[in-house]
Amino acid sequence: MTDTPPIRRSPVPPSECNLWKAFELIGDRWILVILRSAMYGLRRFDDFQNELEIPRSILSNRLARLVENGLMEKREYREDGQRARTEYPLTKMGRSLGLSFTALTEWSDHWIGKGSGPLSLRSKTTGQKLAVALVDEQGMPVKNDDIETVIVLPPKASRQPKK
Amino acid sequence: MTDTPPIRRSPVPPSECNLWKAFELIGDRWILVILRSAMYGLRRFDDFQNELEIPRSILSNRLARLVENGLMEKREYREDGQRARTEYPLTKMGRSLGLSFTALTEWSDHWIGKGSGPLSLRSKTTGQKLAVALVDEQGMPVKNDDIETVIVLPPKASRQPKK
Repeated sequence: MTDTPPIRRSPVPPSECNLWKAFELIGDRWILVILRSAMYGLRRFDDFQNELEIPRSILSNRLARLVENGLMEKREYREDGQRARTEYPLTKMGRSLGLSFTALTEWSDHWIGKGSGPLSLRSKTTGQKLAVALVDEQGMPVKNDDIETVIVLPPKASRQPKK
Repeated sequence: MTDTPPIRRSPVPPSECNLWKAFELIGDRWILVILRSAMYGLRRFDDFQNELEIPRSILSNRLARLVENGLMEKREYREDGQRARTEYPLTKMGRSLGLSFTALTEWSDHWIGKGSGPLSLRSKTTGQKLAVALVDEQGMPVKNDDIETVIVLPPKASRQPKK
């Protein structure tokens, strides 16, 4: 889409990139759909399984990874007269993915849903539709042509782009 | 983390969820790291392979999926005196994932990078650090307790939550 010369190596190498590490935690379709349901409030193994139509062994594996990586907690609960069962609530780290999920929902409504989708966020007081945007330290919006990328690597991580 | 009763089914069923469909396109670690490098400007097969240390057959498969799903274009280029080669620039649909990637970078800097990371976005005019936030239709920030979720499903998709 552009005729500028290609970049040969990313200015942030994978070893220094937190986004890269995030993809190691959540770069998996099952993990992502489990997190989607968890954002809506699902917590129980059987409820995830019913909604996602996921084999039990895969669900078990992905929930264990989510717990191990700090995105979910594992805890026991017991309903009256029933045996103890396990539920998986999101941790604060897991819930904090909400803004990224909202940004991705906007993208998917635009590019996959042809401009609309079932879920929207609104202001309770004004009823206005809310959208994800870049804002400055006062919370004020910035124009696209006013945005610059600053990259500061630890000295050892800097490297010349290969020719 | 919460003691409210769990939700048994998501109010937006998978079949109506554009985010779910997005996860079918990008819910894969290799796809995501390819997109990360492409956002920085990588376009060439060999450059992706060098940076990502990815087997050629997997890279080939993932690039084909990205092209098929509209996130990348495939086109020929030729350098002086060399044979024609293929490059994979992002389409507008692919580049539009930038805001979601920025939101996820913030999340990963906070939760994985312990509060900082090598990349930041700044205002060229004020030098202020930029962040991803929810804004209203005038671009003004909203408070967390002023946000409500509105879900409108097509009639056929509505269903009662299972007890």
